[in-house]
Amino acid sequence: MSDEARFREVIKQIEPPDEEARRAAQRLWDAKTKPRGSLGRLEDLGCRLAAISGGVPERINAAVVVAAADHGVSVDGVSAYPAEVTGQMLLNYARGGAAINVLARQAGARLVVVDAGVLTACDHPAVRPMRFGNGTASFSRGPAMERETAARALLAGIELARELSAAGVNLLVLGEMGIGNTTAAAALAAALLGVEPVAVCGPGTGLDAAGVARKAEVVTRALAMNRTLLGDPLGALAAVGGFEVALLAGVTLGGAMSRAPVLLDGAITGAAALVAARLAPRARDFMIAGHLSPEPMHALLLRELGLQPLLDLGLRLGEGSGAALALPLVQAAVALMNEMATFEGAGVTDAGR
Amino acid sequence: MSDEARFREVIKQIEPPDEEARRAAQRLWDAKTKPRGSLGRLEDLGCRLAAISGGVPERINAAVVVAAADHGVSVDGVSAYPAEVTGQMLLNYARGGAAINVLARQAGARLVVVDAGVLTACDHPAVRPMRFGNGTASFSRGPAMERETAARALLAGIELARELSAAGVNLLVLGEMGIGNTTAAAALAAALLGVEPVAVCGPGTGLDAAGVARKAEVVTRALAMNRTLLGDPLGALAAVGGFEVALLAGVTLGGAMSRAPVLLDGAITGAAALVAARLAPRARDFMIAGHLSPEPMHALLLRELGLQPLLDLGLRLGEGSGAALALPLVQAAVALMNEMATFEGAGVTDAGR
Repeated sequence: MSDEARFREVIKQIEPPDEEARRAAQRLWDAKTKPRGSLGRLEDLGCRLAAISGGVPERINAAVVVAAADHGVSVDGVSAYPAEVTGQMLLNYARGGAAINVLARQAGARLVVVDAGVLTACDHPAVRPMRFGNGTASFSRGPAMERETAARALLAGIELARELSAAGVNLLVLGEMGIGNTTAAAALAAALLGVEPVAVCGPGTGLDAAGVARKAEVVTRALAMNRTLLGDPLGALAAVGGFEVALLAGVTLGGAMSRAPVLLDGAITGAAALVAARLAPRARDFMIAGHLSPEPMHALLLRELGLQPLLDLGLRLGEGSGAALALPLVQAAVALMNEMATFEGAGVTDAGR
Repeated sequence: MSDEARFREVIKQIEPPDEEARRAAQRLWDAKTKPRGSLGRLEDLGCRLAAISGGVPERINAAVVVAAADHGVSVDGVSAYPAEVTGQMLLNYARGGAAINVLARQAGARLVVVDAGVLTACDHPAVRPMRFGNGTASFSRGPAMERETAARALLAGIELARELSAAGVNLLVLGEMGIGNTTAAAALAAALLGVEPVAVCGPGTGLDAAGVARKAEVVTRALAMNRTLLGDPLGALAAVGGFEVALLAGVTLGGAMSRAPVLLDGAITGAAALVAARLAPRARDFMIAGHLSPEPMHALLLRELGLQPLLDLGLRLGEGSGAALALPLVQAAVALMNEMATFEGAGVTDAGR
């Protein structure tokens, strides 16, 4: 059986959210000592969490999965940073010095650092090797990876999510690092959304206007070069995606299979989430949008996914940072549902009944 | 010396933010392992915190001050809830069952519950009595309180902020409770911003359209009835404000005097902040807007204060809940500035230099 066939079989296991649990969560909110609906989007969030988990979780045990990989396309002048920075940052995550380390600590989340295929393998005990190559091939000259490799990365992501879920994790946070990966995400977004490359290419980590124009040209060329491969989501992922994108799309699907909400970060995890939703439409019900990135593709991706971001703070770092900053809001929704007094219990007049 | 004269003397002590500390904080951000500016508004927030505190604080020790009081105007049908709920909720705060209790715990903040003048005094060891009356008089029939009472409440708020600061608190979070207080805040906003009552009256905790129209009529009548008293901010505060609003305006001023950032909640704390800014324009530099309330006056108040809210989640509970939900973002900014590795320290290529 091919990896693709195995993958197709596995993702049939995603079940829909629990609508009765969603209604019960709203009744719980309505009994709490506050005007009906006054916690706004936090109430919706709590109801979604209950529907996803099949009931209000007692607490959130979050794991941030930061997957790093290199991109062949980075040699085409599409990034302000050289490819070597991917491996350097992977080591920074391993040693605890990056933004996501600080933010995961702050939020009490476990951090899982994955090498999905940086140019030079990182040998550090805090890095989990799940490598699908020494960086992808440049999709401006052919497909980034084989279709079977993409299927294998998806399966590995599913396995990782299920392993974390089995270990007690009940919320997955997606993070990524990879010099050149806003170009891969833009190519995927253009292919899957059917929009022009200029509509989805932005400055990434810091390109100037000329750099953004060059990036859009590279994406245009990549889509033309790989056009026969873009007819289905798995084909598009293999042709113009990246190893970390494929792995994170798998983590998203594995989260949905494990009934764990998946908290998305910015544009790149948004592209991974769209791949997941195209491969298994039900996966969308398990996604929470942590924040809105200023990268132009992100608003388009979230709209297509039907998601409203929790934060909008101009964050464009990636590595899960925006999602980790939104995590306390998710934790707060759960704590409020569990810990707030009811009108009846507290002897408060419920005029809004 | 009158309380007003004492107050005028005291607030001369507010010093401007430290611009050198602000610049040093930006240099610190720029040395961290991330593209320049990629943490967006979190970087601005960190720089403001440094300017306010005179350097990057090692950590945030936050106290949430929730002040409750009753409002004579509540008998005029301006709220979906009866006045008795103010006292009931004060007891709920004292016993730990309200949203703000959960959120303060989640964020590791101290909670200070103040009775600024509910109808019936709440005798509970967890409530700090700072009463300026048994609820205000209804400002639809005359001033809510005497000018000297407002000055006394401002001084008490200043004293409270300074006491907390002396005890190690380096960030003050404002919260309030008072049935009828969106009407008081709307009247203050209309008076201080010079806008029509209909532009600042909203549903509060849950009025229908007819209720909102009635509220706007009450505010219109109140402004007409008290028009000779509205010529200066202290006069307006006394005429159409509330005890908790006056106390929180004082806490804001005391925070500025103590160089502690003051994290604002929704529309009512926004009105208190505007009073503070009109009494001492420099106080504005010490304010952080936690969130944007859907109550229509709030966007106007924040625009006038020059503040951009951190969250926009449709929250309309008050009691400091929106500010407490934003607190983890402030804590994260401080943790990132203190704990992230630098390009040099982590051996990461700094291409954005």
